[in-house]
This record gives sequence, structure tokens and C-alpha cells, in this order.
Amino acid sequence: MVGGGPGAFIGAVHRMAAALDGTIELVAGAFSASPEKSYQQGAALGLDPGRVYGSFRAMADSESARDDGIDVVSIVTPNHMHFPVAKTFLEAGFHVICDKPMTNTLTDAEALCRLVREQDAVFVLTHNYTGYPMVKEARGIVQGGRLGVIRKVIVEYPQDWLATPLERTGHKQADWRTDPKRAGAGALGDIGSHAENLARYITGLELSALCADVTTFVPRRPIDDDVSMLVRYKGGARGVLHASQVSVGEENNLNIRVHGSEGSIQWFQEHPNWLYFRKLGGPERILKRGNDYLSPAAQHASRLPSGHPEAFLEAFANIYASAARTIAARIAGHEPGEFDTDFPTVQDGARGVHFILTSLESGRQRKWTDAAYTPPE
Amino acid sequence: MVGGGPGAFIGAVHRMAAALDGTIELVAGAFSASPEKSYQQGAALGLDPGRVYGSFRAMADSESARDDGIDVVSIVTPNHMHFPVAKTFLEAGFHVICDKPMTNTLTDAEALCRLVREQDAVFVLTHNYTGYPMVKEARGIVQGGRLGVIRKVIVEYPQDWLATPLERTGHKQADWRTDPKRAGAGALGDIGSHAENLARYITGLELSALCADVTTFVPRRPIDDDVSMLVRYKGGARGVLHASQVSVGEENNLNIRVHGSEGSIQWFQEHPNWLYFRKLGGPERILKRGNDYLSPAAQHASRLPSGHPEAFLEAFANIYASAARTIAARIAGHEPGEFDTDFPTVQDGARGVHFILTSLESGRQRKWTDAAYTPPE
Amino acid sequence: MVGGGPGAFIGAVHRMAAALDGTIELVAGAFSASPEKSYQQGAALGLDPGRVYGSFRAMADSESARDDGIDVVSIVTPNHMHFPVAKTFLEAGFHVICDKPMTNTLTDAEALCRLVREQDAVFVLTHNYTGYPMVKEARGIVQGGRLGVIRKVIVEYPQDWLATPLERTGHKQADWRTDPKRAGAGALGDIGSHAENLARYITGLELSALCADVTTFVPRRPIDDDVSMLVRYKGGARGVLHASQVSVGEENNLNIRVHGSEGSIQWFQEHPNWLYFRKLGGPERILKRGNDYLSPAAQHASRLPSGHPEAFLEAFANIYASAARTIAARIAGHEPGEFDTDFPTVQDGARGVHFILTSLESGRQRKWTDAAYTPPE
Amino acid sequence: MVGGGPGAFIGAVHRMAAALDGTIELVAGAFSASPEKSYQQGAALGLDPGRVYGSFRAMADSESARDDGIDVVSIVTPNHMHFPVAKTFLEAGFHVICDKPMTNTLTDAEALCRLVREQDAVFVLTHNYTGYPMVKEARGIVQGGRLGVIRKVIVEYPQDWLATPLERTGHKQADWRTDPKRAGAGALGDIGSHAENLARYITGLELSALCADVTTFVPRRPIDDDVSMLVRYKGGARGVLHASQVSVGEENNLNIRVHGSEGSIQWFQEHPNWLYFRKLGGPERILKRGNDYLSPAAQHASRLPSGHPEAFLEAFANIYASAARTIAARIAGHEPGEFDTDFPTVQDGARGVHFILTSLESGRQRKWTDAAYTPPE
Repeated sequence: MVGGGPGAFIGAVHRMAAALDGTIELVAGAFSASPEKSYQQGAALGLDPGRVYGSFRAMADSESARDDGIDVVSIVTPNHMHFPVAKTFLEAGFHVICDKPMTNTLTDAEALCRLVREQDAVFVLTHNYTGYPMVKEARGIVQGGRLGVIRKVIVEYPQDWLATPLERTGHKQADWRTDPKRAGAGALGDIGSHAENLARYITGLELSALCADVTTFVPRRPIDDDVSMLVRYKGGARGVLHASQVSVGEENNLNIRVHGSEGSIQWFQEHPNWLYFRKLGGPERILKRGNDYLSPAAQHASRLPSGHPEAFLEAFANIYASAARTIAARIAGHEPGEFDTDFPTVQDGARGVHFILTSLESGRQRKWTDAAYTPPE
Repeated sequence: MVGGGPGAFIGAVHRMAAALDGTIELVAGAFSASPEKSYQQGAALGLDPGRVYGSFRAMADSESARDDGIDVVSIVTPNHMHFPVAKTFLEAGFHVICDKPMTNTLTDAEALCRLVREQDAVFVLTHNYTGYPMVKEARGIVQGGRLGVIRKVIVEYPQDWLATPLERTGHKQADWRTDPKRAGAGALGDIGSHAENLARYITGLELSALCADVTTFVPRRPIDDDVSMLVRYKGGARGVLHASQVSVGEENNLNIRVHGSEGSIQWFQEHPNWLYFRKLGGPERILKRGNDYLSPAAQHASRLPSGHPEAFLEAFANIYASAARTIAARIAGHEPGEFDTDFPTVQDGARGVHFILTSLESGRQRKWTDAAYTPPE
Repeated sequence: MVGGGPGAFIGAVHRMAAALDGTIELVAGAFSASPEKSYQQGAALGLDPGRVYGSFRAMADSESARDDGIDVVSIVTPNHMHFPVAKTFLEAGFHVICDKPMTNTLTDAEALCRLVREQDAVFVLTHNYTGYPMVKEARGIVQGGRLGVIRKVIVEYPQDWLATPLERTGHKQADWRTDPKRAGAGALGDIGSHAENLARYITGLELSALCADVTTFVPRRPIDDDVSMLVRYKGGARGVLHASQVSVGEENNLNIRVHGSEGSIQWFQEHPNWLYFRKLGGPERILKRGNDYLSPAAQHASRLPSGHPEAFLEAFANIYASAARTIAARIAGHEPGEFDTDFPTVQDGARGVHFILTSLESGRQRKWTDAAYTPPE
Repeated sequence: MVGGGPGAFIGAVHRMAAALDGTIELVAGAFSASPEKSYQQGAALGLDPGRVYGSFRAMADSESARDDGIDVVSIVTPNHMHFPVAKTFLEAGFHVICDKPMTNTLTDAEALCRLVREQDAVFVLTHNYTGYPMVKEARGIVQGGRLGVIRKVIVEYPQDWLATPLERTGHKQADWRTDPKRAGAGALGDIGSHAENLARYITGLELSALCADVTTFVPRRPIDDDVSMLVRYKGGARGVLHASQVSVGEENNLNIRVHGSEGSIQWFQEHPNWLYFRKLGGPERILKRGNDYLSPAAQHASRLPSGHPEAFLEAFANIYASAARTIAARIAGHEPGEFDTDFPTVQDGARGVHFILTSLESGRQRKWTDAAYTPPE
């Protein structure tokens, strides 16, 4: 692991997600830009001190020299470090699991696409919300044509944790996430990108154009904390996407509605075990995780019987489990299983970066902007 | 009553709303452009045949000549007839209750504003959703400053009754509502205008600019059936408004969220007795109709104890009850009571028409458009 | 109307319910045991003073002597007056609409059964919750065998309006409802009887035995304010019924679950437009009022399109509308229509009284008690 | 681990719960009564073959002889084996984590109480639902007196997984859970005991008497699959408890309501992050996991920020984490931390066994039965 030092939120999440299924073992880390904090965190995690490093470069060098070196690195640093760390470890021959957004520039994102192909590496981007079983069910419903022709996609991601100037109170998370140099973008990058990815994962639709209103509500904050946009998709579907980190009363309310000519679905991250499914002229149905009537993909992504709720960590662990199975297959030289490659890729990362930058541009210019994009394969 | 002939939906609703409290009695009508249908409907309603008319002009003439003529006319025709009927009855000295949208052109809307002032008439526009007690509670919370500075307003009005080309099956409602000559606009006029009115009623915010995406999803339909827009309000608040008549699985899901710097509220028309209220850092609260902890305005608009749900007709009846009390006060020559004038006015109607036309223009041009407007007082 | 004087809750409800459809006109009344209050209320309602009476006996005498006398009397007095008033008006040849519970003794209840038969009168008991369209849908689902063999019925009716000693503050409602002489029973009679009636209406099951725990939680209250019971039905189904007027936080949360071998339904009075329906092995379905997929009985009981919620008054009005159609048919000498006799009868009233008395007895003796009962036809 | 062989549900849950926080490592096991299956499971879990045993007695002997032997055994066998396994390991000097119900007889349960005291062992019973943060919040609210005097406790646990004769299809779980010899009791033991424990954990109330209706709905099933009961608590509170494994449409819907003289709470296991809290005369509040306004106990039991839902496994892991901290403290010879001993004990197990046996007796006799019980300390 690179990043995830004392007090970091997402590093601990990655570690629990990896531990849940016992398929990935944490054996080495460079947990902080401060060597001291890195050693402190390594000790707290009970790691062999010889494999706790003062810098990610030292870790890449040392681990690639070991016979029992790591197979894969998990990058959980602030955003601006994703690129240099990923590049270093890819070049050193490792597989990569990387947090999102992937990079702060499109040039870097496309460079990673090419590097992953050149190294024949497995690259997994932790758009973790696609790990939820009922998100997979939603995707299956759309792909199976059960909604008819998609008309409208409404995806929302309101939060309120930055409703006040938290970054001026010494809060570590808030500090880097509101710093344009490290975070790149604010609400757009941190959660808008999740919303875009979720909509694309479920519908398979490609963006055609968008018109964004990008706002900073908290005075003197140097980065966006709220965004709303109109979206047009290739093929004629329309969309609305809005995300906010200052919507008081909202916790982590990612949710999506997909309306087609014959049906619609709706899903809420805060109640993730249920998926609402409506067909034209029929009653609303609530599909619930863990039932035999769900698709194989949704059942495969589930650990517990119905009514025994799964949640955020289990969905996150699904990304790790898929990554682990795909990397294990790659190492063993055989093909991964049917559901093993169901994780966000380096191309998804490039699409996300393009989306963020296009939205910022549209907001600056206050106009509809072309959003079509195809990343390098 | 003018309009509301056999098979009309909204005419029956107006009649039930008026009957509920027994303050307005239906005594005369021109129920259809077809004299025969008008007589038929009058008979079905048990009216004195001498006061059932073959045309609205005959009704205005005859009723103004009677000593016991009507006090107020209720206009429930298709949209294009609102203006000529309202003009005729206003000029004949009557008060007017009129369905929305008020007119199909801004010229007509502003002409009505002036005529209402000249005649010193009471003019009530049936944006009925503002009649709900918990909408009044929401308005009170915002006006009382309990949300702090308003940041974001999200108002939605999805339906699905026009998800298929219903107008080509002989459905009377669908026929005129998808005819640009009679309806003026489609989803925008029929329900988008309700959404705009609801947001304005609750927040008091005035539009500054908007960028609309106006769409027709059902092939060969000659009018819009879906609209999404970004909104900017005077004072810096941002908004998202979307309405649709083709969102499969949605029935009449008007709902609104208002986020301020210190709190937020959320309300759903389909579960109208509850209002969600959140303060920064505190638990979510569910305010429920009929309780002593609500504002006088919300309590005043309520007929039943808490837990005995009220709904659409009761809210609609509140518009009628306010109209009745205000008109009765006018006739009696005294001032109306504190809550009696809490109904949408002719100026609200003009604002609605301006909103509809601006949205259509923004959609045609695919750009942000100035939406500031002040109607004639 | 007999009863429903100034400040009474249920009288006003009956009047609004009758007004909604315009099929029953209020023309005469004895609104209070106090002649003065009766005249005052009659004036407030705009009645002909000649038809406002100082006593119910005067009203029965006078109205039966008129050519244009009333067709039906609506009895909305405290419980102990139901019997003498109903008896008087039945004997005078009128039809009767009566609030519940029907009487305070089984002797009186059975006497009314016989009198109704002798007079060939229409007798309607306002167990109003059976007027909800989705309750009728639930009944249709059970009767159609779609739940298989009924196993378990759970019906609850918690409220909290008597959570404090409200009767000692001068509250009129609370005063008589906690007085054993006038109310007969407390929570058991007022709302437990609704719960029992609702379960029977939906399932058609007859009680076999019950074991009740009848409690008074508020100190010095002379009547029960909480009851819980186990129930056995003929045929083997089991049940749980609990009702309370002291459950803080509950408003009027009547709700029911019926579980069968092949499916189940669930309904909540506070969200009355939705009915939850589950079939073994399939997803939960939400059936919503106003849709074409519902039974004719449910559609017939509905006034508005789906998504335009109906509620308590509309359900209550359905009882009145059925009564009006049945009485009109009786007067006209023809058969009532298919759904016209779908209202609670005098036999339902007798069953309710037997249920209340048996529950009180079981509670006193703390044991399982035989609850089988067949009222006189 | 003893038990948890191939195909077992609860064994896998215990393993994931233990893994999540990395505080307990699985190093040895006797996973099945069949040595072959035990070895197979040990291999699948990647254990040292030298520590996978053919019988629990071999495991106890061998592990107690090792310097690096286990600290604690986790017992996840069918119910009838809990006692002999727990006894063996306690006598061998190990701490014990044991699934519920603890034993099939009260004699065995009390023997374990005494043995735990004699051995000065840590004994943890996995009534896992008490591990939920919002259950701890509920307990804190009651203990803090914020509900006033408790009046009524309604606890439900409906499921439907045994709605059909699943045990006759070769389903392993269903097979032993419907066998009186192995399971002891059916719905009563498996889930009724969870309901009773949850109510006791939150309210602290002790049973005084109960009257149970214990039923078997699926023909030819030799054990109860449904139970409903009235409950009286010491101090005057009343209760209703019902549990079912044949309630079609219910998944794992454990839920509880506690009503006091000044407030009430409600919690649903299937939506475990929210707790409903109502105070007399005030609006309903939704308390949500992960917020600063919650009690230290609830915050301590939480891993993720608000809005990032936690669920079943995280709650189960809380039991394991508490056990691990308490055992670690015991081994290290110091006092456990403030929240470390917040887990169900051997006395809770004995109370649960007494509750089950009393309920069966009450059902057999169809009468109210004394339920007071104090287990040996």
C-alpha cells in the first residue's frame, strides 16, 4: 500500500476491504510522505519493519528486488500522487489498484492507459460503488433490454461534510480535498466522478455533450463544492447529474434513476440492498440482494443470505476480490473467471478525468460543451 | 364553472374541492364548447337547466344580468381558452378562479394582470400543490431563516402517463395536452410550471437565468414531453428542475429539496403529510401534518388530526377555501383573514408563463438564457 | 345527524365525507344533548332552523311526520347513545348510518340486528378504514386465493393521543372516551374494534379464541388504554392484535400484515395509497391506488388518477357513497349495484361488540377465551 | 473453530467477522464431525494441516499441549453440540466464543455458567444483533431515561426461509434446524431467542411472565416454525414478541419498538444504520450511524463515516472485536477498556435457554406462565 497513513479515511477502508475475503494480504507499505509516519503506521499494522518504507520509490525498488515481493500495489494517496506512484510501480512490473480520480490531467491518464498495455498489467480503479450487487443487477436489467430504449438518466451524489469551512479547522481529509493542487477538482472530482462512472457502468451510455454549473458555496474555498449538469448521451438519451459536498442533511446519498421506454430502475447507496424496478403499466417491484431471482452477476457479488444486509465494505471488497482473482489468474497464466474482470479499468479512469475536465470547462464558459471521448486502449 | 364537461379530469377535481368545505356552491356552468355536452353535464350535476349555458359568453351575459348571479367563475378549460374566458368574466365584473398555466402568451398574461387590477377583482390561479399544509410549513421554515442562506433548490416532477403515444388512442386529456395550439407547451406547461411555482412559493427566490434541455421522447409527438434545466436564482442560489411525462414508473412524483447553509427540507407530493427537515449536525426530523409543533399557517390549512392523512383533494380545497374567504370578505367589504389570501395570484400566473416561454427559448437555442421577470402589479 | 355538536371531531368528518360526492345532503340534526348547543351548531351549518332539534326523539318524531323528511340518520354521538338513537330512528322507519362500536352491550347489539331485519332497513356501521381502495385490493387478493392458505394475521393500531391524562385537562373527546359509562371500553373499543374489523374484512376469517392482555398505563385512568392479544382463527390461522392510545410517537398507525402459504400483503393506514404484496420466491411488489392493474373493487372506490393521493376523508366518503347508493336503490325499489353494499353491517357491529367484551373478559381472567360468535341475521 | 464445515452458513460469517478487523487469526479447527470434511475445509482455508483436527476433543487436547496453542475457540456447530464442545474447551483452559442458543437444556446452561466462573474464562455468546451501533444507541437512550418509564416493548423476527418443507430437499441448514434432537427448538430457539435478547439488551427489563402460542405451519415438520407471545416484564411493562420462519415475504426482518411514557424508539435490522426516536409532542427523529450526535458507545462500534452504510458483518465483527480486546486484556493481565466487555455472556445464554423452555411450556399448556429467572453468576 502507498498512502493510508495515520488518520486517513480511505486507506483503512482499502485494508478492511482486502481483509474481508482473505485473498489479498498486506505485507508492505509506504504509508506517508513522511517516513516517520510511514514507519509508525507500519508498526501499528503489525508489518515486518523491513517492508515498511520511507518513500514509494524505495518501496518499488526494494519490493521488485525481493523474491517474495508484492504482487500488486494499492495506491490510496491524495489524487496528485496517483500518477507518479502508479507509473513507478507499473514500470517496476507490478499490478496496480488505484483510488479515483485516476489523475489530475488527461495527459497523465492517457500515459497510464498506454503503460498498462505495454506492461500487460492489471489496473483496477476503485470506483467502489460499482461493487454493489444491486448495481450489478441494475446493469443486467439495462443490458438485457428490460427498460427498452433509455430515455433519461438522473444521478445524484449529495453530501454535506464540507458544508462548513472544515478545511480551516485542521481536518486532514478536508485540507487536501479542497486544495486544487492536490485534489485537482473538488466535488466534481471526488464524487461527481463516482456519479458519472455509476451511470456509465449501469447504462453503458457514452457522453455526447454536457452543460455544467460548477459552484463554490463556502466563502474563500478555492475549489468547487457543488456541481449540477445537463447531459446528452450518444443515441439520444438525456441526463441530469448533480453532486454536492455542501448539501446540509445529506450524508452520502449517491443514487440513480434510469428511465427507459418500457421500464425504470432506481437505486440508493444508503440502502444498497434494495433495487426498485418498474415496468410500464405494472406495479413497482423491490428487488432485494441475496435472492435466487437475481442475475448470476448479482448473486456472485453477494456473501450473505437475503435480509442479512451487506453494505459499503462488502461492495468495496468485491472490487478487491475481483482484482485478486484476475491477478491470481494472470500470475498462474490462465484465464480469469466469468465475473473476475468486472472492475473499473484504466480506461474508465481516463474517461473520468476527461469528464471532470470537460465539466470544469463547461462551467467556466457557461455553455454546452462536447463531451465525447474515447480513451486509448 | 366554464369547462369540465363529461370525461374531463380537472373539472371534477375542482368540483370536489369546492364541495368539501361547503363554502362555494356550483349553481351555473358552460361545461363544454359543445352546447349539447354542456347541457348533458349540467343535468348530470343536478343544476337548474336555466343556468346551464351553451357558451361561456352566454353565461357571462346571463349571470351578470341576474340578481342572484354567480360571484366567481371557475375556469377549467384547455389552456388556450383560459385567456378569452377570464377576460370575458373579469370584464363582466366577476371574480375568477383559473386553472394553470394561465395563458399561452405573455401578452395575454400581462393583459390579465392589468384587467384584474382595473376591475379590482380577486383572481386565483390553481397551482394546487401550494395548498398542502406541509408545503406551507416548508415555506415558513425558509422564511423564518431556519435553513440559513439558500444554496440549492432541486425540484422534480416526473410522471409517466404520456410514456406511450396515448394521444393517438382517442384519449381526450392526452389529445389536447399534446396539441401545441391548445396546450401551448407540453410537460413544461402542464407540470414544469407547477414545479417552478412550488419552488418559488417555498423559497421566495426569483429566477435570474436558466439553461433548459427540452425534449420530445415519444416519436411524432408535436410537443415537449420532458424537460431538464439548470437554474440560477437572484442572490446566488442554484437550482435543478426537471419534469417529465414519459418517465416510466413515476406517477405524480412532484418533490422538492431546498438546501441552505444551516439546514434543508424535502417534501414529496405522493406522501404529502410528511416533511423532512434537517439541521446542520443534527438528526433528520420528520414533521407530520396535524401536530401542534407546526406553524399556524400549516395548522390552519389542516382539517384532520395527525395520523389521519389528508391528500390531494384537501390541498386543492384549501385553494378554494382561501378564494372563498377572500371573495366573501370582498363582497362583505371587510378585510380577509390572516391566511385567506394565501393563494396563487394573476402575477404568479404571468411569472409562470414567462418561465415556460423562456425555457422553450433556452432549449431551442441550447444556451443559458436570462430569466428575470417582474409582472405588472 | 344526531351528535356532532361544537368541538366534536367525528361529526365534522362525517359531514365532509357526505359532502364530497354530493350524494347525501345534510338537512336536519339534533347535534347535542344540550338543545342550545344543537341550535348553535345547526345555525353554524346553515340549516333551516325548523329542522334543528333539541333532542333526537323530537327529531325522529318531527322528521317522520314531514313529507320531505330525512331518508337516513347519521349517528355520531358518544358510544352509549348509539343504541337508543338507532333504535328510535329504526322504529320510526329510517335507515341508519352509525358510528362504532355499535353498542356497549351484546344484548343491545343483537336487538339492533333483529330490528334492522324487522324494519327491512339499511344499517351502515362506519368502520371507515374498510373504505380505502387498497384495503379492498387486499381483500380481493386474499379472497382470490393469491396468498394460499392464511397462516398469520398481524394487525396493529397504535396511537399516542392519550399518552398523558388528557381527560383531566377538559378535553371533550378525551373526557367521554375514557369514561367507562359512555365509552364502554377504551382503546379496545375505540381502535381495537377497528383492528379486528379490518382483519376480518380483508381475510374473511372468523375468530375462534383469544388471549388478551388489557392494560391501563396512565395512572388513575378508569379505562383500558392499551391491549395486546393472541388470536386463533377458525381453520387454523393464528394472529396477533395490539392497539394502544399511549404509544408515544405513534399517530394513527393502523396497519395489517396477512401471511399465507404462498404470499403476503401489508398495508399502512398512514400511507394508504400503497399496498405491499409478496409472492413466495419473488420480489416485493408495491401496488398503488389508481392503476389499471388493480381489481374492479379497488378501482371503483377511487376518485383520482394514480399518484394523486387520496386519504382518510375519501375512504370515509366511500362508506357514505355506498350507503347512499344502497339507500337510493332501496327507495327506488331496485337492486343496488355490484359494489354498493360493500359497507359494514349491523352484524359486523354485533361481532365487534362480542369481540370487545370477550377481550375484556380474557384480560380479566388472564387466560385463553372462546371467541367464536355468530350474530343474528 | 469447531464446526463451520463445507456449506455451513454461520461458520463463514464468523470467519469474515473475525477477519474484518484483523484482531483474531484463525489458526486451527475441527470443522466437521466427519474428519474428512474437516480436513477438506482446513485445506480450503489454507490452514496448517497439523492444526486441522478430526474431532473437537483431539483439537482441545492438541492445542492445549502446544506452546502456541489457540487462545480462544469459536463454536459454530449445530446447537446440541454447543454444550459438550464448550465444556471440553473451558475445562482445557480456553476462552470460548459460542453461537446461540447456548444449550438445549437449562441444566447444561447453568453448568456452563458455573464452569466459566470456575475457569475464570471469557465466554462470549454471539447474539450478534446487539453488535449494531444503532442498537447500542437505542440502549443508551433507554438507559439514559429519555423514554421515561417503559410501557410497551414490541419485538418481531419474521423470516420466510422455511415457508416450504425445505428440510425434505436435502438442504443442510434446514435439516438440522428442524430436527428437535439437534436444534432443541425451531423458530423459538433460532430467532425467538435473538428477539428476546435484543429486547433485554436495549431495555434491561427482566421477564416476569409470558403466554406463548407456538405453532408448526408446515405439515409434517417436527418442530415449531412460528411463535407469538404476550409478555409481562418486572416493573409493569408489557410486551409482544413474535417470530416466524414461515412468513412469506419476510427475509430477516428483526425489528423492535420500545415505548415509554416520554418517548419511543424503533429499529429495523434490515436498515440497521437508522434509528427512529420520538419524544412526546415533538417530531420524529432519524438518528443515523456515524454522526457526532450519537453516544460514545454507538460511535465506538462504528468503522465508517455516516452515509457509508455498515451492516450485518460489521455488527458481527463488533462482537468479535470486543471479545478479542477482552481476551487480550485478560491474557495481558490488565483491565479491558470501557466498551470491551459489551458482549453477550454465559448468563445471557442461560436466560435465553430459560426463555425458550418457558415459552414451549406455555404453548403446550396454553396459559400464562411464570418467566422470572436469575442465572447463576
